[in-house]
Amino acid sequence: MKTAGWLPRGFFVSMRFNPNMRAIVIDNGVSLRTDYPKPAPGEVIMRVRLAGICGTDLELARGYMSYRGIPGHEFVGEVVETQKPALRGRRVVGEINAACGACQACIDGLGRHCRKRTVLGILGRDGAFADYLRLPERNLISLPDSITDEIAVFLEPLAAAYEIFEQIKIPRNQRVLILGDGRLGALVAMAFKAESYAVTVGGHHPEKAERIGLAAQHEKDLNDRYDVVVDCTGSNAGFTRALELIRPRGTLILKSTAAASAALNLAPVVINEITVLGSRCGRFAPALDAMASGKIDPRPLISATFPLDDGLHALDEAARTSNFKILLKVS
Amino acid sequence: MKTAGWLPRGFFVSMRFNPNMRAIVIDNGVSLRTDYPKPAPGEVIMRVRLAGICGTDLELARGYMSYRGIPGHEFVGEVVETQKPALRGRRVVGEINAACGACQACIDGLGRHCRKRTVLGILGRDGAFADYLRLPERNLISLPDSITDEIAVFLEPLAAAYEIFEQIKIPRNQRVLILGDGRLGALVAMAFKAESYAVTVGGHHPEKAERIGLAAQHEKDLNDRYDVVVDCTGSNAGFTRALELIRPRGTLILKSTAAASAALNLAPVVINEITVLGSRCGRFAPALDAMASGKIDPRPLISATFPLDDGLHALDEAARTSNFKILLKVS
Repeated sequence: MKTAGWLPRGFFVSMRFNPNMRAIVIDNGVSLRTDYPKPAPGEVIMRVRLAGICGTDLELARGYMSYRGIPGHEFVGEVVETQKPALRGRRVVGEINAACGACQACIDGLGRHCRKRTVLGILGRDGAFADYLRLPERNLISLPDSITDEIAVFLEPLAAAYEIFEQIKIPRNQRVLILGDGRLGALVAMAFKAESYAVTVGGHHPEKAERIGLAAQHEKDLNDRYDVVVDCTGSNAGFTRALELIRPRGTLILKSTAAASAALNLAPVVINEITVLGSRCGRFAPALDAMASGKIDPRPLISATFPLDDGLHALDEAARTSNFKILLKVS
Repeated sequence: MKTAGWLPRGFFVSMRFNPNMRAIVIDNGVSLRTDYPKPAPGEVIMRVRLAGICGTDLELARGYMSYRGIPGHEFVGEVVETQKPALRGRRVVGEINAACGACQACIDGLGRHCRKRTVLGILGRDGAFADYLRLPERNLISLPDSITDEIAVFLEPLAAAYEIFEQIKIPRNQRVLILGDGRLGALVAMAFKAESYAVTVGGHHPEKAERIGLAAQHEKDLNDRYDVVVDCTGSNAGFTRALELIRPRGTLILKSTAAASAALNLAPVVINEITVLGSRCGRFAPALDAMASGKIDPRPLISATFPLDDGLHALDEAARTSNFKILLKVS
């Protein structure tokens, strides 16, 4: 049982060492089994090789989505059980939304918005901070040898960053501010930079972003008005601050979620005619292209790698603002 | 001094009968003069003929924008003082944002977003619930004889409704819900109907909207998911309810503002990748065209007309949800 400083009272994350299946578990008082997974029809079993800890994992542990189970949705795996012999042994990443395939959203190609979906390590489906996980075979993408595990483990969050470019066309001359200089903010800033935008990162640790080659300012020193602000703060205060930093008719992209409601005033959205765009998961293909072409190398974001057995320590480190990405080496 | 039921304790609206200048005043404890206006260079003086009471006027009285002065921004007037003889005696309406004309927003043709602007009856400029008002001459639009006062007084709010179509292109096959069946919601619904959209009004008094020919449902009976929801509720609860009624990747247009902050959860905006579009004042020209062509006749929205002397009674009536638009006959 774990009651680290970053966890509110009454919330628990623990490490399980079951036979054949080690796992990190968010139980928060509920009794949970964490066995080797049973594949549903069409699903494959993967042995996890490497996994990344995301701010959402920490939010889930703090009660977001009322999630109970194994967290983790950024991973590189190796297929160990499948109906397709050609897949066995393949090194893969996986789209994290498991959709029904039959509803209108799925027919429209938006399985990520299927109302019956489960989401790896987030909604009704055990995640990647474990020895094994299961996903529908159609969710998998095989990795070329040129993309190492250390690069590929960033595919899911980079796909989320590239989702912005799939949702709206932002003219290249627009001035972009990324609010929040944590792992998500830095990766989103890398994506904007790779796509030739003038981008500034605003946060509480500008020296951290500068170390990996990003233009950064302390959040309290920001006083310009930007055309586009991407909120990657993971806090509700970020929304209010972002509204102060956008020009009238500008765009605020919400890239992070927070567990709790907060006292917010929407009047500035109306008065300044701001467009607020919620943005979540993206297709993996554009992000994989950006990595394969060398436009983005996310490895400078790796602050440390821990063995899965040391998972709770890894979560503690991920909660420290001095770190970017913490990885879990599983196999 | 006025402490009507719709006003919080400590907030006051009063009627002033100064020589040459009757006016309704929001003072909220501050001593205010309400004299016949002094025109600044480039400004004209108009005698108010007819004015409309907007939900924003009631919100201002409840503390929104910390406004002190004469409210009112929907009006038809007659020019009585001007440097241009041709203007004298003209029946006019007026764009309510008085911009500096020199900043980047003004140069870009977006004077409505000038940071130095004053706004008639809303921000730093006395409004139309009075015998006289002043505005820059460039803000005025002369009215053709075919547009009566009773129609023209709706130009400002109808321009705000048409602002939506200036901001985004909504495909004609999209299903539109107007949330809120008050005066603003009904007028926005009229605009969508006039522009050939299938539009439903959702609110607490569907019979009211149905009486003027709109398709309406009680808000609690709504369970569909719409492509576009326009929040015209004037309450923060409207935002949360609207998010429940939009399909993933749909659009929520915020058309009304509320004075207070409220506990809001933005996670659904991110999870469902909603676009939230703030929308405020619009150009008068598209709305005037719609009226002149007969596409829209807003007169069924008039619930009652009061003389200015009876202004406080008129505000009380405007605060009743059983009414749509309350007008003030000034001269």
